[in-house]
Amino acid sequence: MASMAARPAFRPPTTAAAFTPLHPHFHLHILHHHQHPRKPAAAISCSIDSHYRRPSYTPNHIPDPKYIRIFDTTLRDGEQSPGATMTTEEKLDIAKQLAKLGVDIIEAGFPASSAADLEAVKLIASEVGTAVDEDGYVPVICGLARCNKRDIDLSWEAVRGALRPRIHTFIATSRIHMEDKLKMTKEVVVEKARSMVAYARSLGCDDVEFSPEDAGRSDKEFLYKILGEVIKAGATTLNIPDTVGCTVPHEFGQLIADIKANTPGIENVIISTHCQNDLGLSTANTLAGACAGARQVEVTINGIGERAGNAAFEEVVMAIKCRGEVLNGLYTGINTKHLVMTSKMVEEYSGLALQRHKAVVGQNAFAHESGIHQDGMLKNTLTYEFISAEDIGLHRTDKSGIVLGKLSGRHALGAKLSELGYDIDGKELDDLFWRFKAIAQHKKNVTDDDLMALVSDEVFQPQVVWKLGDVQVTCGSTGLPTATIRLIDADGEEHIACQVGMGPVDSAYKAIDLIVKVPVILLEYSLIAVTEGIDAIATTRVLIRAEKDDISTHASTGENIHRTYRSVSYMIYFSFQNIMHAFVVVHNIVYFVVSGTGASMDIVISSVRAYIGALNKLLGHKNRLNKDTTKRTMHV
Amino acid sequence: MASMAARPAFRPPTTAAAFTPLHPHFHLHILHHHQHPRKPAAAISCSIDSHYRRPSYTPNHIPDPKYIRIFDTTLRDGEQSPGATMTTEEKLDIAKQLAKLGVDIIEAGFPASSAADLEAVKLIASEVGTAVDEDGYVPVICGLARCNKRDIDLSWEAVRGALRPRIHTFIATSRIHMEDKLKMTKEVVVEKARSMVAYARSLGCDDVEFSPEDAGRSDKEFLYKILGEVIKAGATTLNIPDTVGCTVPHEFGQLIADIKANTPGIENVIISTHCQNDLGLSTANTLAGACAGARQVEVTINGIGERAGNAAFEEVVMAIKCRGEVLNGLYTGINTKHLVMTSKMVEEYSGLALQRHKAVVGQNAFAHESGIHQDGMLKNTLTYEFISAEDIGLHRTDKSGIVLGKLSGRHALGAKLSELGYDIDGKELDDLFWRFKAIAQHKKNVTDDDLMALVSDEVFQPQVVWKLGDVQVTCGSTGLPTATIRLIDADGEEHIACQVGMGPVDSAYKAIDLIVKVPVILLEYSLIAVTEGIDAIATTRVLIRAEKDDISTHASTGENIHRTYRSVSYMIYFSFQNIMHAFVVVHNIVYFVVSGTGASMDIVISSVRAYIGALNKLLGHKNRLNKDTTKRTMHV
Repeated sequence: MASMAARPAFRPPTTAAAFTPLHPHFHLHILHHHQHPRKPAAAISCSIDSHYRRPSYTPNHIPDPKYIRIFDTTLRDGEQSPGATMTTEEKLDIAKQLAKLGVDIIEAGFPASSAADLEAVKLIASEVGTAVDEDGYVPVICGLARCNKRDIDLSWEAVRGALRPRIHTFIATSRIHMEDKLKMTKEVVVEKARSMVAYARSLGCDDVEFSPEDAGRSDKEFLYKILGEVIKAGATTLNIPDTVGCTVPHEFGQLIADIKANTPGIENVIISTHCQNDLGLSTANTLAGACAGARQVEVTINGIGERAGNAAFEEVVMAIKCRGEVLNGLYTGINTKHLVMTSKMVEEYSGLALQRHKAVVGQNAFAHESGIHQDGMLKNTLTYEFISAEDIGLHRTDKSGIVLGKLSGRHALGAKLSELGYDIDGKELDDLFWRFKAIAQHKKNVTDDDLMALVSDEVFQPQVVWKLGDVQVTCGSTGLPTATIRLIDADGEEHIACQVGMGPVDSAYKAIDLIVKVPVILLEYSLIAVTEGIDAIATTRVLIRAEKDDISTHASTGENIHRTYRSVSYMIYFSFQNIMHAFVVVHNIVYFVVSGTGASMDIVISSVRAYIGALNKLLGHKNRLNKDTTKRTMHV
Repeated sequence: MASMAARPAFRPPTTAAAFTPLHPHFHLHILHHHQHPRKPAAAISCSIDSHYRRPSYTPNHIPDPKYIRIFDTTLRDGEQSPGATMTTEEKLDIAKQLAKLGVDIIEAGFPASSAADLEAVKLIASEVGTAVDEDGYVPVICGLARCNKRDIDLSWEAVRGALRPRIHTFIATSRIHMEDKLKMTKEVVVEKARSMVAYARSLGCDDVEFSPEDAGRSDKEFLYKILGEVIKAGATTLNIPDTVGCTVPHEFGQLIADIKANTPGIENVIISTHCQNDLGLSTANTLAGACAGARQVEVTINGIGERAGNAAFEEVVMAIKCRGEVLNGLYTGINTKHLVMTSKMVEEYSGLALQRHKAVVGQNAFAHESGIHQDGMLKNTLTYEFISAEDIGLHRTDKSGIVLGKLSGRHALGAKLSELGYDIDGKELDDLFWRFKAIAQHKKNVTDDDLMALVSDEVFQPQVVWKLGDVQVTCGSTGLPTATIRLIDADGEEHIACQVGMGPVDSAYKAIDLIVKVPVILLEYSLIAVTEGIDAIATTRVLIRAEKDDISTHASTGENIHRTYRSVSYMIYFSFQNIMHAFVVVHNIVYFVVSGTGASMDIVISSVRAYIGALNKLLGHKNRLNKDTTKRTMHV
C-alpha cells in the first residue's frame, strides 16, 4: 500500500554534511574535539528553524542517513496507562494534531483490544492517513498486534484504509517473559515471530514492524537470531524496547550498536528504540540509541504510558533540534511549534496532568511564565533559558496580558488562534467569533487560556443526551446537605429530583443519578482554581466508568481494562462594572455566558456540569456502539 | 568545625572491588564486554540491600573511591521554585527526613535571602546538624552564598551551629552571564571567587564548596583557570552546574572528565555535579558526571526546582543502587526505604504535585498500585517491574486493603508506622493511638493513607490563631450564594460574619476575610477526591500570600520572591451502619471525628478549613518574626 502513496519530493538537508558510516563497535563518544570543533559553549540556544526537511518514505530505507523518524505511540502505549482511555473523537483529534506536528508514524491503537479501538484506528487511517499535505507528507498509520492471526487480521483491517499502513507485531524474548508470561520455549517464540511477520506481509502489507518485548533484558545472541529470522520473513522495521526501563544510556546504546553489528540482514531495515522511563533515563536512552544507529524513535506526548511512561516526544525532539550538533548531526521532520498545543490536548484527554516542572512543556518550564515570578523579568531571557518559548508554540503574552479585546476583528482572532496552533476558518471561525465578542464585551483581556477553553468547546460537537437545567443546594456544618436538580433530556422533557448526600456535590450527583438511571462509578473528582486577581479560571474534572461492560484488552499483559470517561468543565470569571460574570465551557456539552448573579461561578454548578459531561460521553459511546439508540441525541 | 565532629567508623564496602583510576580522556562506554562480563540480562532487578556503608567524612577526600556523596538541595534550589516557599517547621521536617535517608550534605537554604531563611538554616544546623546517629553519621549542613562578604557571613552564621558546617559560594562563569548579568570581566570574576573562598576559610569554615554558575556553557580553559584558583584559595568541593540544562550526557561527562584532567590541584578536592532538567536529561547527565569522576551529586527530592527542576534524588539514587554494576561499581549511603515518605512530604510542603507517571515515586510508577489496573495482578511482578516497591518504602497493602483494624494494638500501630517511614514513639505514639482507635471503631480498613493523614497532623503542633466554629451555605443556579461563618479566636471569643460571593467557597472565604482582617491573595485552590468505593479521601489545597511584605531574594537572579503559605485539608470518609462519618485532618490546625450528619464531608467545609489553615500559617510566621505578638496563640 505504501508504494501507492503520494511520494513527497526529497528535499536535501539544508546543512548537509557527509555521513560517516558507523563502526560496528560504535560507542557513545560521538564527537571528539579534534573531529568536530564545538561552537563556543555560550552560543548554545535553540532558535526557530522554519524549514524542516523530510526525505521520501520507503518502509525499510531512509535516503538521508541523518534523518530520524518519529513514531508516536501516545494513542496506543500512552492510552493503555491506567485511567487514560480516550473516546474515538478524542483519538481522532490527537491524531490530527500529530499530523500537524509532522509525525512520521502514528501508532493509532491496538485494534484487537476492543471494538472501540478497532473503530478508532479505522477512522484515523481513513481521515488522517489519507490527508496528503502540499509537501506530499502523510503519516504512516500503524496498528499493534500480538503474534497471532486474529490480532494481525484486525490490525490490517484497521489500518489498510491509510495511504501508508503499517502492522506492528511483537512477542517477548526475555527469559522471564517467555517462561512466566508466554510459557513458550525459545524455538516456539522464534517460529511465532517469523510466521506472523510473514503472515502480515502475505496480507499485502509491505510495512511491517517487529518488536522483541523486554529486549533490554533479553539474551543478545537470541535477539540477533530472532531479529535475523523476522528480517528474512519480511519485517521492515525492528523496534528494540527497554520494556521495564532498566537500562542506562551507554548500555542501551551498546545494545543497539551490537544488534546493528551482529544481526544478519540488518542493513536492509530500520532500527527503532522504545524506552520506558522507570529510572528517568528514557530520553537519554533514546538519544543513545539514535546515536548508535537507530533511525526511528518511539515516543509519547508528555511521556505518558504505563508506570513511569515512555520517552517524552517533546524532550527527544527538542534535544535533537537544539543539540543536533553534538548528536551526530541528526534531525527530525517535526514542526515543534505545535508541541505546546499537542501537549495540552493530550493532558486534557488522557487526564494525566503534568507536574509543573515537567521538562519542555511543564507550566514552570519557562521561568517567567510562572506568574509568581514575574516581578523582575530578566532582560536577556537566554541567561536562564536556552530553548525559546516561541519555538515550541508557547506564546508569551505581554505583561498586561492584553492580547485581544472587544475591538479585535475576525482577522485578529483567526491570526491569534493560528498562533496558538489552531487551524480554524470559515463557518467554524464565524461561530467562534460571535462567542468571542460576547466575552470581549465584558472582559477587558481575553487571554490565551480563555480562547483555548472557548475553542475546546467549539471544535468538538459530540452527542448530548442530558442537559443541565437548574441546581439548588443548601449545606454547611449545621445541616443536611441537600440538592435539587432539574435536567432536560434529548426530547426537551424536564426531570426534577432532590437528594441528601455527604456534601453539596455528592448530593447533587446523587440527584442526577436518580434521574439518569445509569449505574456509574466515580473514579476521580478534582477542582482546581487559579485565582490570581479577579480574572480567573476554575477547572473541574470528573472521571467515571460504567459499573458493567466496556472492557478492552491490555496489549502486553492481556488484562482487562475498564473504559473510562473523562469530562472537564471550565469556568472563566470576569468582572465588569463590579458585577461578576462567568462563561462556562464544558467539553462536549454546553457553552453560555452568565452574568449578574454569578451563579455559574459556583463550584457546585461546575461540578455538576462536569459530571453530566462525563455521563453524556459514556451514553454517547454506548449509543455509537449499539447503533440501536432508543433516545434521540442532539447537538447543542 | 568539621574536624570537631564525631567521625563515623569506616565500614568497608561489602562488595569491595579494586578501583581503576579513570583515564584523563575517559569516555562513557565504561563497560566493555571483555572487561566486565555482564550478568544475564534477565537477572536485572533491584532488591533490598539492608546494609549500606558509608566511609568517614573529610571535606576534600573520600576514602572509598567508589562512594558517591549525595548533596540534597531540595531546601535551597527546590524551595526557590515558584510558589514552593516553605515555613521553618516544614523545612526542619524535611531536613529530619533527609537525615533519615542518610543524605551526606543537606543544603538547607540561602541565608542571605531573608530573615526567615537565615532562621531556618540555623535551626536545621542546630537540630539536624548535631544529631549524630549510632553509626556516627551526621549530615553536613550547607548554606548558599553569593561571592560577597555579607552573604558569606550570613551563611556562616547560619551553619556554624552544625557539627559539619559547609559554605557554598558561587559566581557565574559563562560569557552570557558575566556580560549580561554580572557585568564583570573574567579577571574580576576570578578575583571575586578566589578572595571569597579564602574569606570563607578565614572564618574558620574548613568545608567550602565553589560553583562556577552556568559551567555547561562556560569556556573550558576559563573553567580550569578559575577552579585552579579557588582550589589554591581553599575550596574543598568544586561543583559543576549545568545551570540551563542544555547538555547531553556524553557532553556533560566529557566536561567533568576534562575538568578532572586539566585543573591544577583537582586531585585534592571533590568534583560535584548539579544538572538542571530542561531537556529531561538531568538524571542521565548526573550519572555521566559520576562515571567521569564526580564524587558528589546535587539532587532534589522529586526533581523540584526552577523551570524543569533538577536531577531527581530518587532517580539518581535508584539508578546507582539498581544498576551500580554498569556504573563503575558506584554506590551511595542512602537508605532508600525512606524515599516514598520523603517524596510525599516534599510534594505536600512544596505544593509541586507530581505527575502520576513520575519515575520511581509517581502514583503509577508501580503498575498494580494504580487502582484501576488491579483486576489481573501478575503473579510475577518482576515481569514488568524491576525495582521493588518495598525497596523505596512503598508498602503494598493486600487486595482487601486490610492492614490495621479495631483490634490492632499499640505495637501493631507502631510497627506499621515505622514501616511507613515514621519514627514515632512514647507520648506521641500514645496520642496517636487513641485517635487511631476512634477511627478504627467505625472504619473497617484503616489504610496507609488514612494513617499518613493522621500522623501529618499529630506530628506538627504549630500555632493556631483562628479556629472554625460553623459554616452555613446556600447556593445554586437559582440564587445568590451566601455563606455564614463562625470563627473562634485564640482567646476563645466568637466572631460571626456573612457574605455573598461567586459561589459557596468564595462567599465563605469573603466572610472569613471580614473577620480575620488580614489582606491576602488567594493564589491557588484545588480539591481532589479519589472516590473508589465509599471509603475515600478528599484533599483540599490552598495557597495564599500576604498582600504586602514577606519578600526573600532569589539566589541567581536577585529577584524578589513572595513568601507563600500552603495548607492542606484532608477528609477521610467512612461508613458504619449506613451512616457516613468523616475525620478531618488539617495540617497545623484541627483534628476531630464527626459522624451522624456527615456535615464535615462537605467540600465547602473542607475548603474553609484549608483556608483557615493557610491564614494561621501566615499569622504564625508573622508572629514568630515580629515577636511582638499582640494576640495570644494556642496549641490545639
